[in-house]
Amino acid sequence: MSVAVVHRVELTGGFWADRVRINREHTIPHGFEQLGKAGNLHNLRLAAGAEGEYRSPDALPFLDSDVYKWLEAVGWELGRAPEPGLASAADEVIALVAAAQRPDGYLNSYVQVVGGGVPYRDLSWGHELYCLGHLIQAAVAWHRALGDDRLLTIALRAVAHVPDDIIDGHPNIEMALVDLGRITGERRHLTMAARMLELRGHGTLPAARFGAAYWQDHEPVREASSVAGHAVRQLYLDCGAVDVAVELGDDRLLAAVRRRWDDMMRTRAYLTGGLGSRHRDEAFGDPYELPPDRAYAETCAAIANVMLARRLSLATGEAGYADAIERTMFNGVLPGIALNGTEFFYTNPLQRRTHRAPGGTGQRQPWYRCACCPPNLMRMLSTWEQHLATYDDSGIQLHQYASADLRTPATLLRMRTGYPWDGRITVHVAETPAQSWTLSLRVPRWSRSATLTGPDGTHTVDAGVVKRHRRWQPGDVVELSLDQPARITEPDPRIDAVRGCVAVQRGPLVYCIEAADAPPRTEIEELTCDPRRELTPVPRPDIAEAMVGIDVPMTGGRTAGAIPYFAWANRGPGGMRVWIPA
Amino acid sequence: MSVAVVHRVELTGGFWADRVRINREHTIPHGFEQLGKAGNLHNLRLAAGAEGEYRSPDALPFLDSDVYKWLEAVGWELGRAPEPGLASAADEVIALVAAAQRPDGYLNSYVQVVGGGVPYRDLSWGHELYCLGHLIQAAVAWHRALGDDRLLTIALRAVAHVPDDIIDGHPNIEMALVDLGRITGERRHLTMAARMLELRGHGTLPAARFGAAYWQDHEPVREASSVAGHAVRQLYLDCGAVDVAVELGDDRLLAAVRRRWDDMMRTRAYLTGGLGSRHRDEAFGDPYELPPDRAYAETCAAIANVMLARRLSLATGEAGYADAIERTMFNGVLPGIALNGTEFFYTNPLQRRTHRAPGGTGQRQPWYRCACCPPNLMRMLSTWEQHLATYDDSGIQLHQYASADLRTPATLLRMRTGYPWDGRITVHVAETPAQSWTLSLRVPRWSRSATLTGPDGTHTVDAGVVKRHRRWQPGDVVELSLDQPARITEPDPRIDAVRGCVAVQRGPLVYCIEAADAPPRTEIEELTCDPRRELTPVPRPDIAEAMVGIDVPMTGGRTAGAIPYFAWANRGPGGMRVWIPA
Repeated sequence: MSVAVVHRVELTGGFWADRVRINREHTIPHGFEQLGKAGNLHNLRLAAGAEGEYRSPDALPFLDSDVYKWLEAVGWELGRAPEPGLASAADEVIALVAAAQRPDGYLNSYVQVVGGGVPYRDLSWGHELYCLGHLIQAAVAWHRALGDDRLLTIALRAVAHVPDDIIDGHPNIEMALVDLGRITGERRHLTMAARMLELRGHGTLPAARFGAAYWQDHEPVREASSVAGHAVRQLYLDCGAVDVAVELGDDRLLAAVRRRWDDMMRTRAYLTGGLGSRHRDEAFGDPYELPPDRAYAETCAAIANVMLARRLSLATGEAGYADAIERTMFNGVLPGIALNGTEFFYTNPLQRRTHRAPGGTGQRQPWYRCACCPPNLMRMLSTWEQHLATYDDSGIQLHQYASADLRTPATLLRMRTGYPWDGRITVHVAETPAQSWTLSLRVPRWSRSATLTGPDGTHTVDAGVVKRHRRWQPGDVVELSLDQPARITEPDPRIDAVRGCVAVQRGPLVYCIEAADAPPRTEIEELTCDPRRELTPVPRPDIAEAMVGIDVPMTGGRTAGAIPYFAWANRGPGGMRVWIPA
Repeated sequence: MSVAVVHRVELTGGFWADRVRINREHTIPHGFEQLGKAGNLHNLRLAAGAEGEYRSPDALPFLDSDVYKWLEAVGWELGRAPEPGLASAADEVIALVAAAQRPDGYLNSYVQVVGGGVPYRDLSWGHELYCLGHLIQAAVAWHRALGDDRLLTIALRAVAHVPDDIIDGHPNIEMALVDLGRITGERRHLTMAARMLELRGHGTLPAARFGAAYWQDHEPVREASSVAGHAVRQLYLDCGAVDVAVELGDDRLLAAVRRRWDDMMRTRAYLTGGLGSRHRDEAFGDPYELPPDRAYAETCAAIANVMLARRLSLATGEAGYADAIERTMFNGVLPGIALNGTEFFYTNPLQRRTHRAPGGTGQRQPWYRCACCPPNLMRMLSTWEQHLATYDDSGIQLHQYASADLRTPATLLRMRTGYPWDGRITVHVAETPAQSWTLSLRVPRWSRSATLTGPDGTHTVDAGVVKRHRRWQPGDVVELSLDQPARITEPDPRIDAVRGCVAVQRGPLVYCIEAADAPPRTEIEELTCDPRRELTPVPRPDIAEAMVGIDVPMTGGRTAGAIPYFAWANRGPGGMRVWIPA
């Protein structure tokens, strides 16, 4: 067998269980409320025949996609455990989507209500296939998690309506079609995705304001050597490319994505894993153009990179991809959602000044006019436990650490940890087949000295993947111990925007200093850190249970408190910085 | 009498005479050609009744304004000296504008051809009063320079059509109306401008994507303490505010603009005088948010600040405003136009990387889809000599330095200088009345030791304004000698984006290092300068006659050649930086 995701995972407590619970109990219900308020559901009702005015701020044509992303998250959550309130809300929305679909299978509220009912007239900006991709992804979730094929039926009718010679300005449909093909077993869905990838990159879409690179139509997908243009578009496109490459055994295509990804992570990724430095076109900038204050670092781009790195991890087994997932989840994705689960950031700057330009609050918002990020966070958190482990004929591979019970057809592992606050992870073998197999664990690259203790004693292990092959017994315990002292990080000297600064990290977490933790009567802009003095981890129960902050020495003998970057902007306005002048 | 501009100025040679000549002989004829190619004239023909499709990339509604700015420049040039080719082109365009005007006086090709002929339907984005403002400014130029009132007749009919309770999303009409009132002597034009200023700042325009601050509708004009939003809009608005304040003797309004201007120059201006650091909404950023690579620094914003500083200089006589005009003209405006006069920059970054994001050339363009900057440069250069000097009952004030003959009703001064390459300025008194009067000269703040030599000997003078009151005789000579060694400038420590860097300046000029002048086989990103070693001025005839470059010592004993920033990007692509890591 090839490698498979361990789907039967139960988060049993600790950091991730808590975040996933908040998503389920607060974020997703909040999403349903907001989809009602913002008009998304209203617009589907209009498409289904109700009377009224289409509601879309700035005439955004992709509001249906927010509904589908929400449905996808609900599907995964109902698969985790029943929840009557969510189920009945979802039933209502699924019925609405079904009612909105035209007899010919076409389904897009914007085109049906505002666009004169003429499909595919504006492939560049219309987002029709993008929305359909999200519908498919929701359908896949409901099929996989619940065996409920109501959405799948709708999606298949909608897909049948799509001409086979078009591409969308916003990729997404490609990876969705591959996943659909995996369920239906029909080759044509894969073929359609592959064809879309080949059509792209030849100036296929009409020239527009931001140029062909904006939607990756400037160079063929298998030739472009660097990421370009709109970050989410590039990353969704490359997700589709990996999926197609894996299904077709197309090594050249896979190699092209890996090359781009390596280059991107080396030259265009923020320390937080954030991607896309430009506000104007939500785009990747020049190599090393990584301003902390004007970082765009859209929450969706971080989510998209977790999706892409996961695909590359599955395709290659290399630990670097799981390292990137970890960095990005903690420091690129989580900052997009408040600790309470109901306020969001669309962009994730690494610096906020005390005094700001008039207009705009710089604060988390309960929803956005363009609300792609909040429901994207919902579906990401609903599937987080699917990132923890994989298995194949040789054994089980642990990629991410959280307290969870992991079940494969023949084994049950109980993983327990205080991660990310504590670097010890224990794995109890609860059930195991009689024959020998290999347990693999990722040793993160940030770890400078790690040890593994098991039935054969304690050994130092290097960053990468550590493997233990044996005839496991029920009751065996393995403990991975990752040192995680607070550490100072100097930036790459080619990053002009943070020259002369340092950042503070601990374990997988990037830290920041907020105004609330600056010395009294001191603005964040006046601080200069003294990296020769010692960093001191300190408990921060004022912000979250078990949270570890770091006291950072400043010049003049003062100290400022750093907290994990993901927890910033939960205490009102005020300055913040990740990179601190040294 | 109050202070008046010395209009009878003849540039006799040297730096500015050359730039003004290139504008007249190359840039303005190029503009006529481009207005033909881009569709601006075509669209006016449609408004006049011809058949055809309206041409406007991205449906920009303000293409008429480019025509008016061009006409304004031509008016000033024909006032300088006849030029039959330009005159006949202008006659053709004026006739076209006259033919496009509706019988009721309304005139806007976009609204007449595309917008169903319904005026003022989209005050936020329609730019109708903005275009009208430019028409008025062209009319004023033709009236003042030539006594030709063809455009004035058209403008007055168009103004009569404007309701008195509206404002435009893009200010400009306000200052134009004040100028119109100065010509017509009619109070209602001034009153109209004053009313528009009072209406603004109360959320008068409908809420839109970038928020009310984008068009300065978030706070009343006389209350806002800082500049905000779209830079050109803010600066044009404040030009109108100064004009109204001066005409009405409204000191509170004038004080509000001065307060904003001081704050802007202290917290939001680039070393080059460039303004507006954000691409997304062409807006001012937070205080000290001044990225060199992503500097927007629109050419029009620099021009607008010269216009504003000139008004503040006339209103107050303070030398700081003339200092800002000098810095901005040399380093903020001139970089927007190639040395050959026919290629332009819309944005003026202070850094260009060797390796760049796909899409976009980073090179000067012969024209832009949104072509506000090129004709704005034309009218700015056509009026440059009006910035040199003013006079009043007490005497003559010299603000800017260039070789020129300056004539007031009773005096003729012959100013001669090798400025900006050489810091000596001699002023010959050729004609003078018998009674005594005061000659004032600005001593730029960048000058660290300056001397003034005149009939009463040689004296050291401080930065600011130096005055010499005497009974002048024909043949008297005054020489101002400004030291201008090459100097290293450290940035304000609050500017995060250039921490650890220095800039090189000499006299009024900011310098930059281009790839072409880096040591062999060295990318611009690898350079680190050694500010302890000496800077060496060197002739650079390879770029322009008389140009002085500076050899800048780098670490490792190497040297890189710096050239004036205004002359960058005239030798093809390649990296460039103003701020150099030290």
